[in-house]
Amino acid sequence: MSGSIYGNIFSVATWGESHGRGIGVVIDGCPSGLMLDEQYIQKYLNRRRPGQSKYATPRKERDQVQILSGVFEGLTTGTPISLVVFNEDQRSGDYSNIMNSYRPGHADYCYDQKYGFRDYRGGGRASGRETIGRVAAGAVASAILHELGIEVRAYTKAIGPISIDMAKSDISKAHFSPLFMPDPEASVKAEEFLSRQMDEHNSAGGIIECIVTGMPAGIGDPVFNKLDAALARAVMSIGAVKGVEIGDGFASATLTGAENNDPFRYDESKRLYKLSNHAGGILGGISDGSEIILRAAIKPTPSILKPQLTVNKSKENIEIQVEGRHDPVVVPRAVVVVESMIAITLVDQLFLGMTSQLGKIKAFYSMNAQNSVGQPQPDKSQA
Amino acid sequence: MSGSIYGNIFSVATWGESHGRGIGVVIDGCPSGLMLDEQYIQKYLNRRRPGQSKYATPRKERDQVQILSGVFEGLTTGTPISLVVFNEDQRSGDYSNIMNSYRPGHADYCYDQKYGFRDYRGGGRASGRETIGRVAAGAVASAILHELGIEVRAYTKAIGPISIDMAKSDISKAHFSPLFMPDPEASVKAEEFLSRQMDEHNSAGGIIECIVTGMPAGIGDPVFNKLDAALARAVMSIGAVKGVEIGDGFASATLTGAENNDPFRYDESKRLYKLSNHAGGILGGISDGSEIILRAAIKPTPSILKPQLTVNKSKENIEIQVEGRHDPVVVPRAVVVVESMIAITLVDQLFLGMTSQLGKIKAFYSMNAQNSVGQPQPDKSQA
Amino acid sequence: MSGSIYGNIFSVATWGESHGRGIGVVIDGCPSGLMLDEQYIQKYLNRRRPGQSKYATPRKERDQVQILSGVFEGLTTGTPISLVVFNEDQRSGDYSNIMNSYRPGHADYCYDQKYGFRDYRGGGRASGRETIGRVAAGAVASAILHELGIEVRAYTKAIGPISIDMAKSDISKAHFSPLFMPDPEASVKAEEFLSRQMDEHNSAGGIIECIVTGMPAGIGDPVFNKLDAALARAVMSIGAVKGVEIGDGFASATLTGAENNDPFRYDESKRLYKLSNHAGGILGGISDGSEIILRAAIKPTPSILKPQLTVNKSKENIEIQVEGRHDPVVVPRAVVVVESMIAITLVDQLFLGMTSQLGKIKAFYSMNAQNSVGQPQPDKSQA
Amino acid sequence: MSGSIYGNIFSVATWGESHGRGIGVVIDGCPSGLMLDEQYIQKYLNRRRPGQSKYATPRKERDQVQILSGVFEGLTTGTPISLVVFNEDQRSGDYSNIMNSYRPGHADYCYDQKYGFRDYRGGGRASGRETIGRVAAGAVASAILHELGIEVRAYTKAIGPISIDMAKSDISKAHFSPLFMPDPEASVKAEEFLSRQMDEHNSAGGIIECIVTGMPAGIGDPVFNKLDAALARAVMSIGAVKGVEIGDGFASATLTGAENNDPFRYDESKRLYKLSNHAGGILGGISDGSEIILRAAIKPTPSILKPQLTVNKSKENIEIQVEGRHDPVVVPRAVVVVESMIAITLVDQLFLGMTSQLGKIKAFYSMNAQNSVGQPQPDKSQA
Repeated sequence: MSGSIYGNIFSVATWGESHGRGIGVVIDGCPSGLMLDEQYIQKYLNRRRPGQSKYATPRKERDQVQILSGVFEGLTTGTPISLVVFNEDQRSGDYSNIMNSYRPGHADYCYDQKYGFRDYRGGGRASGRETIGRVAAGAVASAILHELGIEVRAYTKAIGPISIDMAKSDISKAHFSPLFMPDPEASVKAEEFLSRQMDEHNSAGGIIECIVTGMPAGIGDPVFNKLDAALARAVMSIGAVKGVEIGDGFASATLTGAENNDPFRYDESKRLYKLSNHAGGILGGISDGSEIILRAAIKPTPSILKPQLTVNKSKENIEIQVEGRHDPVVVPRAVVVVESMIAITLVDQLFLGMTSQLGKIKAFYSMNAQNSVGQPQPDKSQA
Repeated sequence: MSGSIYGNIFSVATWGESHGRGIGVVIDGCPSGLMLDEQYIQKYLNRRRPGQSKYATPRKERDQVQILSGVFEGLTTGTPISLVVFNEDQRSGDYSNIMNSYRPGHADYCYDQKYGFRDYRGGGRASGRETIGRVAAGAVASAILHELGIEVRAYTKAIGPISIDMAKSDISKAHFSPLFMPDPEASVKAEEFLSRQMDEHNSAGGIIECIVTGMPAGIGDPVFNKLDAALARAVMSIGAVKGVEIGDGFASATLTGAENNDPFRYDESKRLYKLSNHAGGILGGISDGSEIILRAAIKPTPSILKPQLTVNKSKENIEIQVEGRHDPVVVPRAVVVVESMIAITLVDQLFLGMTSQLGKIKAFYSMNAQNSVGQPQPDKSQA
Repeated sequence: MSGSIYGNIFSVATWGESHGRGIGVVIDGCPSGLMLDEQYIQKYLNRRRPGQSKYATPRKERDQVQILSGVFEGLTTGTPISLVVFNEDQRSGDYSNIMNSYRPGHADYCYDQKYGFRDYRGGGRASGRETIGRVAAGAVASAILHELGIEVRAYTKAIGPISIDMAKSDISKAHFSPLFMPDPEASVKAEEFLSRQMDEHNSAGGIIECIVTGMPAGIGDPVFNKLDAALARAVMSIGAVKGVEIGDGFASATLTGAENNDPFRYDESKRLYKLSNHAGGILGGISDGSEIILRAAIKPTPSILKPQLTVNKSKENIEIQVEGRHDPVVVPRAVVVVESMIAITLVDQLFLGMTSQLGKIKAFYSMNAQNSVGQPQPDKSQA
Repeated sequence: MSGSIYGNIFSVATWGESHGRGIGVVIDGCPSGLMLDEQYIQKYLNRRRPGQSKYATPRKERDQVQILSGVFEGLTTGTPISLVVFNEDQRSGDYSNIMNSYRPGHADYCYDQKYGFRDYRGGGRASGRETIGRVAAGAVASAILHELGIEVRAYTKAIGPISIDMAKSDISKAHFSPLFMPDPEASVKAEEFLSRQMDEHNSAGGIIECIVTGMPAGIGDPVFNKLDAALARAVMSIGAVKGVEIGDGFASATLTGAENNDPFRYDESKRLYKLSNHAGGILGGISDGSEIILRAAIKPTPSILKPQLTVNKSKENIEIQVEGRHDPVVVPRAVVVVESMIAITLVDQLFLGMTSQLGKIKAFYSMNAQNSVGQPQPDKSQA
């Protein structure tokens, strides 16, 4: 499968460049009967839209989504859903600066090595705008999960060195923070930290955490398609992500077995629970029915106004100054991208998870026993 | 694609349970003309074999590999390579303890939820022995990489809280350490730490680092099949891995853009280099030609002799004591598994990477211009 | 992979319904450096456009293609190519006739069984307009094949009982016939036959033959991805196709081995040829370098003006009269669809075929030895 | 996906050469809970085993299957099922005749072009023995279909020019004929025809027909993964198959729409039926619940004792005489191979078919509401 197509049964194919005609996604494998309209998807896209706080690029783009197929009378039909956001506000700027040079921390050099040349306008396909396709598809995936009682919620866990204190955090109120940080105190500190970076023409990174509730146990396929492996790929495929961990993640490397194992218990009403969740809801690559917890490390925005050393296509050592309107930190806008990739992946895994037991397959096909077409007057002409 | 099959063009399908007839792998998509024999593959398997130090399970298994297909007169033929290791030394023990109970930190409960029941003997498919198939395939992948000038080298970076000091480490001598740690001082400390854990019937985790040299620039497919995304999935699919990071990984979240960007420069002989490699050799999901650096967090072995709280299938709260011969730490034996998964993934990505430019495809097919079959006396009978 | 996505490396994802907003395709995996513009693709689409002869539906649709992504300064960039044709001329007709009834020979009943309901306007996704996506992608694939010296040419071999005589046919002049039949005499007879069917409010089917020249030997993957297997799937996936055969096909079942085997010979200049081509250019699922010959059986158009027996959703036996503007025969318009599916499949197989020999892979990567990025001042901070 | 791996959810990976160590298959994606033992699979393998009539090669091979994984206490566990048949009776003959020459009608030349060299012993991977892996997997697939009330039955429809008369045929008695022909009269004539071919050191082909009963309506994915497209690929991937047709197939090309459309009707008890089944049970690529009917054209065995013209690797024109023990016709032994490929394909499509409607997915997950793991004492240490 090529690089811009993702998913086994619930598949998405994204397309589009920063300064081309638009950005879009085709979703294939969405079941019929899901209520879907543009307003719903738009809400997700608005969360990643630029220009919403002073910590995001001041570019003004409405990023208005259109549904081009797959929905009839308000419901998905089971056929491919084509979603598109046409581009606006591409400043037809002067690209001479970057068309022949390689911005440090960017994919410019790698694209030239891979493809021989590149669409350098605004980063082309390597632009953060590419994530519009992910988020539009993620909105659809989230709607399916919602129907199954599953919620995916991500938020900013850290900006640079400033981390939230979970005891002071109310995840459901993360959107009150311009940085999507659920701890108001940390949010203020992080704003100060970011302002300093902006003053210095510098940028910052951070950590996004995501919690999935309502996930049934038994989802995920050993060996290579483990639920955590699939999630790791999904999240690491997002532009600026440099690390992914599940549950305690890297911290678990320093724990002992006795500390790290999560004991199972039944409460008095015979409801199963765990005394802890170091595993982050996944054991042996299969969900255990508790909360899935995942964190992603986001690198600092590579586009900074500071002059930087680099080279150009003429094999000269030069100094480059990256002009333009850039996010001093992409973490807050990336929160909904992480949610989206996780939602898409979970839907695919849930669909794959329907065929693990013969008994359940038989029950499914009995339950849905079809209108079998008989042949009282069989035609033997083809004999 | 189902869970035990991996790879797009260079594909592996593994099978087998801990206490079944054996463990194996079918490699499909290996090119013809590779020299391959059992001795070569055996060297890789020996690195993960139990019983090699006191920090590994004392089980004695020869894990002798057999090539069943795909090799003719010492060379791969291009057809599927079937490799098998028949199981020995399965103690036909008393499993009543675990067949009805759920060991904390293990996949027992999840398998029962997914499949309705499980092969409980020695962990069944969820056993670490499953990685034999990965390592056998990894040996073949490494041989291909070697032909292309690419080397994949992993080693133990940390055991519990004990980390190596890179300045004191010689990676090429990691095998002198029973823990595969290239820093002799740290290795001794880690041995002491592990001995304490063993005395306390406890276990430890750690971190494995992997460095890939010789990788050409331009490999990896945006958007969803980025090189780092593919590597993250590959490594996270290994049993005990809870986190994966590329380059500076989670540390990059606290850096500024000015610190984290790697400046490109040309030296006097017009050879390109980078002043740093925070990115770990991958930008925008595509290799930049510098070293690829990846780290994996390994959780502590869940099997500990200490009594633990858990539940059984009769919905009772019980205390379980996991008997048997277990590794106090799996990190040293997992080093070759990490290498293997990375090697398999890189081969697949390199193969995918051959079709990115039309000009190179044309050159390939010109170079290999085939013996075209003409038709001086064309047969029109099918008309 | 979901149903509307096709191909392993050269992948296409199509979307759209007959009376929705439009029809489109995303091509992922097209190499960079291919010259591509809308005019070129339009020529292919025009060949399947309605209203071009009296034997095709009189609907007037311009089917104007737009390139939304993946092309920069006239060349493909290696990133996804999004192509769209917006719908026009959807008569917002009275669908009460078909929305609750099942037209014989159509997929109405099957869609309702699969999805619970359907977009009944003009056949929805099951409309022949769906093939616009295939043909747009086929145009791109054909351009790649052309660069590699490969041509795919299909034509009408038979309409109903009227077959062409190959001895009287000039394939390069098929487009002079309104039915795309290269034998002018047969074409006239077929027109007469079709006129009779139209007078009787009936319809006809036929046979399309396709010949591929310039195919290198050695393409196709045993066992399940044989070249003929891939082509059979590709062509059988076209709406009205009920049979596919390679070379002598069903006729070969009545030949003897001595008759059917194609002897190889060298001519005086040591050029290889075959004395016949019963095999149709493929042996053991691999191309032999001679012409690939394939035929597809097209069923008669199911939409006929004659009243027909059927049932409705209220479980009543009814008589239905399918109104509307339908093709009395789809064969001539399907010719370019068959070409397109074959072209897409061949490109994918040619790309897969680049990794069969280690020696060629090594030569490829030597030839393209990349600008390797060295590290004279390696950064150990991540250690 | 590589060439020897097949299937999206129910996947099989086959391996092995005619004269190597053995032939095998790994089945991944088989649900848990299916009763399975070696005796059951053996019955299928025995149907394709050589030496069962004078119209098959007199080679004596027991083709004894072993289950190496995936079954525990008589039931499939949901993990990969590894099946192997070790080779016996490979005559270590003199291959000088074929190692340097290209047998007409065989894949020898194509393998050399693709891979640079080949395992020439007994045809290597291109041998008919490769189908052992297909049939072993087909047995497992058939067992799943049986549990769902679906039966796949194939039989010989024609040998050379001798076809069965359906009116005189009892499909359930096909096994009484040494040629697997359900019409006893035609079977005798075909035996006489074959004897003549054998006397003349020649060979024959034929046609296999397959009927599937019990298939629910609504299975198959438009556009590219249509049920008929998937079946066409599956059957065309079998060695000697040169054509595939569904329902009336090529004959439908000469029918009119009025003749070819199958009218739906309800009988008095409101049971749906069709007045004919020209479509062969599939409309728009989706099953309609009636019998699925498919035919495959099998070419005559290319190995004949008659001397034939060909070339050798030294680029000389030579005459070759193919020695050895060959089937004068492969049709009867291929019947179970066709059944197997269809069974494997149907299982995969049925599994894919479980996610077409949101309502059914919701019902499935409600029905199977999992033991959700609560967290009364949530662990926040990872915060």
